[in-house]
Amino acid sequence: MASRLQGIPPTIFSEMSALAVRTGALNLGQGFPDQDGPASVVEAAVAALREGRNQYAPGAGVPELREAVAQHQAAHYGVELDPTREVLVTTGATEAIAAAILAFVNPGDEVVVLEPFYDSYVATIQMAGGVRRPVTLRSPDFRLDVDELRAAVTDRTTAVLVNSPHNPTGTVLDRNELEAIAAVAREHDLVVITDEVYEHLVFDDRAHVPLCTLDGMWDRTVSISSAGKTFSFTGWKVGWVTGPASLVRAVESAKQWLTFSSGAPLQPAIAYALTKESAFYGRLAAELQDKRDLLCDGLRSLDVDVWVPEGTYFVTTDVRRYGYADGLEFCLALPERAGVVAIPSQFFYDDADEGRHKVRWAFCKDRAVVDEGLRRLAAAD
Amino acid sequence: MASRLQGIPPTIFSEMSALAVRTGALNLGQGFPDQDGPASVVEAAVAALREGRNQYAPGAGVPELREAVAQHQAAHYGVELDPTREVLVTTGATEAIAAAILAFVNPGDEVVVLEPFYDSYVATIQMAGGVRRPVTLRSPDFRLDVDELRAAVTDRTTAVLVNSPHNPTGTVLDRNELEAIAAVAREHDLVVITDEVYEHLVFDDRAHVPLCTLDGMWDRTVSISSAGKTFSFTGWKVGWVTGPASLVRAVESAKQWLTFSSGAPLQPAIAYALTKESAFYGRLAAELQDKRDLLCDGLRSLDVDVWVPEGTYFVTTDVRRYGYADGLEFCLALPERAGVVAIPSQFFYDDADEGRHKVRWAFCKDRAVVDEGLRRLAAAD
Ligand SMILES: CSCCC(=O)C(=O)O
Ligand SMILES: CSCCC(=O)C(=O)O
Repeated sequence: MASRLQGIPPTIFSEMSALAVRTGALNLGQGFPDQDGPASVVEAAVAALREGRNQYAPGAGVPELREAVAQHQAAHYGVELDPTREVLVTTGATEAIAAAILAFVNPGDEVVVLEPFYDSYVATIQMAGGVRRPVTLRSPDFRLDVDELRAAVTDRTTAVLVNSPHNPTGTVLDRNELEAIAAVAREHDLVVITDEVYEHLVFDDRAHVPLCTLDGMWDRTVSISSAGKTFSFTGWKVGWVTGPASLVRAVESAKQWLTFSSGAPLQPAIAYALTKESAFYGRLAAELQDKRDLLCDGLRSLDVDVWVPEGTYFVTTDVRRYGYADGLEFCLALPERAGVVAIPSQFFYDDADEGRHKVRWAFCKDRAVVDEGLRRLAAAD
Repeated sequence: MASRLQGIPPTIFSEMSALAVRTGALNLGQGFPDQDGPASVVEAAVAALREGRNQYAPGAGVPELREAVAQHQAAHYGVELDPTREVLVTTGATEAIAAAILAFVNPGDEVVVLEPFYDSYVATIQMAGGVRRPVTLRSPDFRLDVDELRAAVTDRTTAVLVNSPHNPTGTVLDRNELEAIAAVAREHDLVVITDEVYEHLVFDDRAHVPLCTLDGMWDRTVSISSAGKTFSFTGWKVGWVTGPASLVRAVESAKQWLTFSSGAPLQPAIAYALTKESAFYGRLAAELQDKRDLLCDGLRSLDVDVWVPEGTYFVTTDVRRYGYADGLEFCLALPERAGVVAIPSQFFYDDADEGRHKVRWAFCKDRAVVDEGLRRLAAAD
């Protein structure tokens, strides 16, 4: 096996979902909803299949989806895009991240990245021969420490990889934090790759602010989002990259060799979703907020330390008061003890002191599943 | 843009398909069929969508597709596979190729590869920091020169990338040629990556022989195929890798970061196709053979030198007798001159003397389209 892959473990999400299937445990691990998105969107995919949208989509995506993404950015953020040059459809955010890292990171380049990391960030930076420079969102409140951010930048830094709303902590960076990132990026002339797949899944009347809308940021920012999280079709793997034409073209120059294109009959359905079902994700966020509260309250009543997330599908807990020093040990025992699967957050950390005792729980599941999970945890002693 | 992408042009298939769309020309360029695969397979996808197969598929693919791929290999080639460890579903062959190259090629490693090359081979080898060592299938008959093959191997060679049935020439390597590759691979202990996406699209009662079935080859061979070409659903981008567990695991370790997984509702439909519609690809091959003959005869009657392909969607011609020294010039003029798009083969060659004057034509299009294309070419003088 090539050295670029040495030491990178299988993605923890696959491992834990396989464990859930094997043990029949409730899966509060991998972030996918129990309920699919709108039936009308499924029917739009059915129509596309039957109408024969079954051969290669253009590499950059079908025109109506690029157009719909552009309209979405205009409607929500006042960002006007040229859909032919400033939008690229990808195989979910995963491919967008891989292609962006391969496009902008040379061997030896440093990439500043928020810790805890989504696992593909670490893997793709390593695959590109880059060096990650973590900036840790520290418990208990997981805010950005601006001094730590500034200290992470060196003269070998070429890119910042941001993720807000942030998986796994649920932090939604506020305007001050985003401004701090923007200032550093401008000062050091960095490319910013920003994974905003949870852009619509924010709670308590928060608003997501895209990094690309800050002063001086448009020209240096590649923004990533996806239909998986916005419309609850994670299995379709339809995502997109937006940004200035030169950066989008660079991402495409890598992306074209990773998959060429994908999901030809699914892309028109997501165009439909963005155009006709934009009420969906507001409702989804409201439902998620309720389930967040249910899960947080339930975990708290079990004597687990809980930090209430501002967005995403996830809540992070500290399992030490619950009697476990090690979250992995806790998570490996949990299917047997309680019939529940959760994710050991230590896989998202370099810093073992921050990560070892943390566990991530998904509340994008049916209310009954969250309820039953809590019941099982309570019964487990 | 990172150096790994410098100098790699946009894929010629996108360029030429965009030209076809822009000019309204008949597209005899990019290899996708005008007719979709079986309606029953479309309906299987419809059922999967409506049944809610819409969240992440397992990273290695849905179990029924892995099982169906294993059964396909057993039925056609007598190869018995463990579907849980020896089959990996990918986002088409493109992702399989990228992941295999990233998994096995270190910077500086040499990869022996058949020239003319499918364009993603060149790009992904460069992205991995590898060095391609072409072995040219030379006109007029595009056979493998075994001496040239042996001469291409050095002590820095780590992999051979084979493609048979071969795009763009249509050569189907015969047993002697395959044995020569196998002997070299065994002798130098090389990994073999073999792209066999046209495995079923062979003509004149030829049989495709998978490289992995040759003596001593199983343990070193990663085989790639896809539903796009076998079932005429190129836009679905459902492909697969088969091989020994250790090599498949290595490919998966790269693949998981490129897309994680894709096409959740399309994968069960391809499982259905492999299980219930295996008569389709025999019929498809017979139809393609007729259209091959139509196109070859038609081109020949225009005084273009034609080599009759043994498989694939494609025929290669030499346009010099037709008055063009440069195939690119010919292809760029063709939409205006004749309302037809074809692919300049020079993008598939390092060797300009071999490639410059060659043009590739696709006959996977409707008979009426091939006919009309020939009529237009005849009228164009
Ligand atoms: C691509 S699998 C991971 C899904 C996800 O976003 C998560 O669980 O964090
Ligand atoms: C992935 S686009 C290229 C399709 C194809 O196989 C070809 O035209 O050679």
